[in-house]
Amino acid sequence: MDPQDFRFSTQISHLALDIGGTLIKLVYFSANGDNFEESSDGSIVVRSGCSVVEGRLCFAKFETRKIDDCLEFIRFNILHHSSGVKHPNGTAMDKLSVKATGGGAFRFADLFKEKLGILFDKEDEMHCLVVGANFLLKTVPREAFTYLDGQKEFVQIDHNDLYPYLLVNIGSGVSMIKVDGDGEYERISGTSLGGGTFLGLGKLLTKCKSFDELLELSHHGNNRVIDMLVGDIYGGTDYSKIGLSSTAIASSFGKAISDGKELEDYQPEDVARSLLRMISNNIGQIAYLNALRFGLKRIFFGGFFIRGLEYTMDTISVAVHFWSRGEAKALFLRHEGFLGALGAFTSYETQSHNNDLKSYHHTVEREIVNCSDDKIRHMPVTANLNDGETIECSINLV
Amino acid sequence: MDPQDFRFSTQISHLALDIGGTLIKLVYFSANGDNFEESSDGSIVVRSGCSVVEGRLCFAKFETRKIDDCLEFIRFNILHHSSGVKHPNGTAMDKLSVKATGGGAFRFADLFKEKLGILFDKEDEMHCLVVGANFLLKTVPREAFTYLDGQKEFVQIDHNDLYPYLLVNIGSGVSMIKVDGDGEYERISGTSLGGGTFLGLGKLLTKCKSFDELLELSHHGNNRVIDMLVGDIYGGTDYSKIGLSSTAIASSFGKAISDGKELEDYQPEDVARSLLRMISNNIGQIAYLNALRFGLKRIFFGGFFIRGLEYTMDTISVAVHFWSRGEAKALFLRHEGFLGALGAFTSYETQSHNNDLKSYHHTVEREIVNCSDDKIRHMPVTANLNDGETIECSINLV
Repeated sequence: MDPQDFRFSTQISHLALDIGGTLIKLVYFSANGDNFEESSDGSIVVRSGCSVVEGRLCFAKFETRKIDDCLEFIRFNILHHSSGVKHPNGTAMDKLSVKATGGGAFRFADLFKEKLGILFDKEDEMHCLVVGANFLLKTVPREAFTYLDGQKEFVQIDHNDLYPYLLVNIGSGVSMIKVDGDGEYERISGTSLGGGTFLGLGKLLTKCKSFDELLELSHHGNNRVIDMLVGDIYGGTDYSKIGLSSTAIASSFGKAISDGKELEDYQPEDVARSLLRMISNNIGQIAYLNALRFGLKRIFFGGFFIRGLEYTMDTISVAVHFWSRGEAKALFLRHEGFLGALGAFTSYETQSHNNDLKSYHHTVEREIVNCSDDKIRHMPVTANLNDGETIECSINLV
Repeated sequence: MDPQDFRFSTQISHLALDIGGTLIKLVYFSANGDNFEESSDGSIVVRSGCSVVEGRLCFAKFETRKIDDCLEFIRFNILHHSSGVKHPNGTAMDKLSVKATGGGAFRFADLFKEKLGILFDKEDEMHCLVVGANFLLKTVPREAFTYLDGQKEFVQIDHNDLYPYLLVNIGSGVSMIKVDGDGEYERISGTSLGGGTFLGLGKLLTKCKSFDELLELSHHGNNRVIDMLVGDIYGGTDYSKIGLSSTAIASSFGKAISDGKELEDYQPEDVARSLLRMISNNIGQIAYLNALRFGLKRIFFGGFFIRGLEYTMDTISVAVHFWSRGEAKALFLRHEGFLGALGAFTSYETQSHNNDLKSYHHTVEREIVNCSDDKIRHMPVTANLNDGETIECSINLV
């Protein structure tokens, strides 16, 4: 591919970041090439008479501890392709100020300024989570789904019957937010047992290097090796009077107290499985108890913890179903990890009033940036390019 | 001491057991020697004309995995000293049938029958916990106390204003029981993150051998080494908008994800501290959320997890206080570990109708059995004799 063609096909703008304790999440708009033409001075401008730019929302994520990879990715893939993009009226899109949320928007502001010349326009983290969730639930078809008895089922959300709901964002820690409407929300609870606990304890216990490795391990494990079940205490029988079956977990990791084994004697798979079960179940239970306080029937789970893993969704769903006796429902989101970044992204629209972002079609295309360009191929960056599914959308340049 | 004197001074009866997944708890009645005299056939009988036997409730505990120690303890210290005790009317106290509760009453019934000739008269676990708690709260002065800001304060319970309350029993797992009156209760919730999780994960992470060792370790640790704080994410600042200070824990064990350390690089003290904090805080939070559902203002914590450890009580108290905004109160019990065993014990009274147990005075005497007897000194048993504080009481033989 001719580099010139590539440049036309991947004009990128509107980067937004959500920098958490564990992960950095990026959302950016990649305009389709046919929106643009080259002007007389060699810069790329939006095609004359074109007020709606079509393209895709793209997603990427990096580990926060590998922030240099993120900086390189932005430098080569985003800043490079957004340079010189101008609206036909001559106003250059601001390439220096970027929407950012999450604690890292504070912690790493100086680093981004120094290394990339980017200034963070900071957005509140809870606000962004809510705005991002509302955007997905209202705009993107087949975004939310339930997972029960091994069945994934997409749920069509009636916009007039969306609120109130409980948003549970599972990042390093967990935030629980009661959402009552556009911009109406309250953080009502949270727990420190979140994705950071899973990965932190998981690394110490299994020597896994990454979240994905730990999830993969857990897939092959059996939690009953290390969890103490009701049947282990009751000699194989249920404690039926209070509704506890013999296979219910009485004590997470409880078997490790007694069988004279050391860490090395357990299979890492089993340890990972117990850990995932413990944390998923605990989040499901605390979420349900908070939903109950306010009579919320729907609980949406966001954040980068679940990743479509069936066992995790099943554990959370069963916890919510069990404790609520079927009254409350756990729902999952396909773009679960990017709520905050999407919320920051959409704030370009609400603040500048000169863009109108509309998602009109959702694809399952998984390739985020065209990788045929030399600059990308040789770049020392390994982004998780396949993590987020792109969302086709248009930006209205008014 | 003459063995004969000793036998007189330690007549033991009314053994009750609570056999959990981690610990076996024993309560037994040790009558004062001057209640007895030797009869013509050499057996020990209650002194003629004496209908109230005075003595003490004694407590002991064993690890369930070391059940042989428990069997030996019962054989040498209890069966030996209860043999031949007769009421003046000639009916022998039943030495074969013993009240037992907890899952182990099922699991180990055959073992006790085979090794000691003891038959378990099984009592429901939740029922015993509630009966035991009510007995302590109504009968034993200075039993319940609060722990706030480093201050322990005994709470005088008004018997007419005791109910309803939430009983949180932290054993291997955790049961949460709403208590509405004598015999009126419901197990409303629980969590698998309990004492078994603390000890199980603690053993795997620190190579500690016992609960006490792990608690001692945690005493010297600093959880901030391994927990991810709000300030770690926000670059040292608070997230004040939602009331999270920079020192709040955002993610338990969250720092372990990123700093390239392995388990061996952390101090076991710090790991133990984080673990204790995580589990205590989680229990406090779930307890509060359940108390809130039913408008319960007082939460009593029982079970063998807390053991008077200030850090644990402080964490639980702060969690309850923080989440309830001061509306609910955490209370602790001096005999926290023996609720189930006490409940089983008092069921002798309610079922047989021939004993009337009254605690009339509470001492802080910590020696449970007289250790000067040769048989005890040479016995291959290490009971935790100092764990429970004895309760002086009397049994009315009607």
